[in-house]
Amino acid sequence: MPDTEPEASIETEPEASIETEPEASIDMESWVCPLPLRDAPAIVTGHGGGGAMSGELVEHLFLPAFGSAAEAGLADSAVVEIGGARLAFSTDSFVVKPMVFPGGTIGDLAVNGTVNDLAMAGAVPAVLSTAFILEEGTALDQLARVAQAVGTAALAAGVKLVTGDTKVVASGHGDGVYINTTGIGLVDPRVDIRPQRAAPGDVVIVSGDLGVHGIAVLSCREGLEFATSVASDTAPLHGLVAAMVETGADIHTLRDPTRGGLAATLNEIARAAGVGVSIADTALPIPQEVRDACSMLGLDPLYVANEGKLVAFVPAADADEVLAAMHAHPLGARSAVIGTCVPDHPGMVVAKTALGGNRVVDLPIGEQLPRIC
Amino acid sequence: MPDTEPEASIETEPEASIETEPEASIDMESWVCPLPLRDAPAIVTGHGGGGAMSGELVEHLFLPAFGSAAEAGLADSAVVEIGGARLAFSTDSFVVKPMVFPGGTIGDLAVNGTVNDLAMAGAVPAVLSTAFILEEGTALDQLARVAQAVGTAALAAGVKLVTGDTKVVASGHGDGVYINTTGIGLVDPRVDIRPQRAAPGDVVIVSGDLGVHGIAVLSCREGLEFATSVASDTAPLHGLVAAMVETGADIHTLRDPTRGGLAATLNEIARAAGVGVSIADTALPIPQEVRDACSMLGLDPLYVANEGKLVAFVPAADADEVLAAMHAHPLGARSAVIGTCVPDHPGMVVAKTALGGNRVVDLPIGEQLPRIC
Repeated sequence: MPDTEPEASIETEPEASIETEPEASIDMESWVCPLPLRDAPAIVTGHGGGGAMSGELVEHLFLPAFGSAAEAGLADSAVVEIGGARLAFSTDSFVVKPMVFPGGTIGDLAVNGTVNDLAMAGAVPAVLSTAFILEEGTALDQLARVAQAVGTAALAAGVKLVTGDTKVVASGHGDGVYINTTGIGLVDPRVDIRPQRAAPGDVVIVSGDLGVHGIAVLSCREGLEFATSVASDTAPLHGLVAAMVETGADIHTLRDPTRGGLAATLNEIARAAGVGVSIADTALPIPQEVRDACSMLGLDPLYVANEGKLVAFVPAADADEVLAAMHAHPLGARSAVIGTCVPDHPGMVVAKTALGGNRVVDLPIGEQLPRIC
Repeated sequence: MPDTEPEASIETEPEASIETEPEASIDMESWVCPLPLRDAPAIVTGHGGGGAMSGELVEHLFLPAFGSAAEAGLADSAVVEIGGARLAFSTDSFVVKPMVFPGGTIGDLAVNGTVNDLAMAGAVPAVLSTAFILEEGTALDQLARVAQAVGTAALAAGVKLVTGDTKVVASGHGDGVYINTTGIGLVDPRVDIRPQRAAPGDVVIVSGDLGVHGIAVLSCREGLEFATSVASDTAPLHGLVAAMVETGADIHTLRDPTRGGLAATLNEIARAAGVGVSIADTALPIPQEVRDACSMLGLDPLYVANEGKLVAFVPAADADEVLAAMHAHPLGARSAVIGTCVPDHPGMVVAKTALGGNRVVDLPIGEQLPRIC
């Protein structure tokens, strides 16, 4: 750690180099919805999907509107220096439906989701805030179950819940319980982990089975129930990250493939770093039950959300050691190398199919699975 | 500032000494809604009002459910030490209806509200996160106006928007735009400002006219429109606080009287510090238009929300100097002494009436004005 400075020294380390305008300067009188916000003059479900439409909303609406007040491209997490401490800072709202699903609840998800965003910057999560938006008429025992899940998950992750907020909205303006969690973590001084550092030659590793969270939530959604033994993988990943960092490897990039699944995550990294990503379909750890459910529902497992998995981009020389450390951790026991980072097709993800062909794995446009987290 | 320590050192300074149970331990099988959560087995509007019912929800549901993961009584803001830096951390969700009102929008409110919660701990606000929950069908130009208000307010307050999140919920499960902002500020090493420090003998000062935000919002609420020139006082108060701190006074307590108004804020401070508060009705700066609107609506101005005012508890010896510094600041020009902190009636707020009598100013129970912030 560097020495502290006596004054408030705040520096942000941009996660993405999106240029901002010099000041907040939308002229609302003449404002026309900028292309490519599609034809819709209004918010549609796809704007919340974590895919191309979400990205367009940030790039073409939020960033111009925020002007020079915005930094760091409004990424999943920011690394900022305040009072001499190098901190990761991340926020997420959770609107998953239903609130209770096989393997977890909105409460676990809210804690683990923010813990994981901090961990993906190489930070040790320290404190969380919790802000609840409650719908009038929500049963107190249902709220208590959710709140207890928050407490239990926070204890398990070793983070303290230090401040909170509760708002109530009328029936018909919410959906039981929405939770925002925002967290602060202390960034390990040995690491520099961000999407921009992904480099040709890196080995791409995932920490286990893909697609289970999304399928678990869908399996109990009203009107869509189906029988499966798949349970959500929601889990805090900072312990796994710590084990990986302990190897001394220069880990370039970490990301948890949540909304939009592995496909969205790999595309984001490819674009942020200006590299290509090449994966092998046959190397992807996708459980048969997830494959079956996806066939039935017409989904591609690469686009299904995970809540307890990470993707790592690691220099080839360090890959064996990192993989061994992951295998030795309970949350990484089924880790697998799924591909490599390449100099070809920058910004694109290409999968080698089982038959030996190649297919482009696109960034999803909208939302395959609404309200999955 | 103290020297940094090489390891992650995290200490919280509890804002309220509410005891937590050793672990998250609600037995849901036998869970019975604990009194005094009234008779309602479900969330009602009053649980979001910032009064007694909000407090009961925190004390009897959230804190037992969170167990030992919760610290600091889940107050409006927490002061935590991370990596050697002493940080204020605060979260708020904003659900104000309508989103645009005389003098402001949900966007200004979302920035200034969190900036002010940090400022009330004596912190210089540094960074904010913004998390939007958008209702399907919300017009993009309406969202752009709100987002621009966020950017403009952040620029004005000197805080950076460094990370964000967007979720979309179906029509009928939101109300246009809900915004959560969470902020980090660096606490001035010279100060120790918290409700528990309010002490008998302290002079109680408010920084200007009371009740204007709530009346401004109500004046344009659907079904309730009335003519008034009152505009919201939404403003960032950290500059005013800095001017007060610069005097060298040992400011004991600062609070912004938002939901529940001055009455809720003074009651919270009286209870946290175990002191009495005595105010004079004739000393309260309440504009005639607020009085008129309150008469018409059957409201008590002491319970109406403010979004750009603070209440300060200052040792008598420092009061003149602090008041002079406040008067010299644009946001404190109409500051006034409204009472004193007393050893009598601990935990209670008593107002001397214009006719020479005394009345108890109770903590509001539920919500006089729903969705005011």
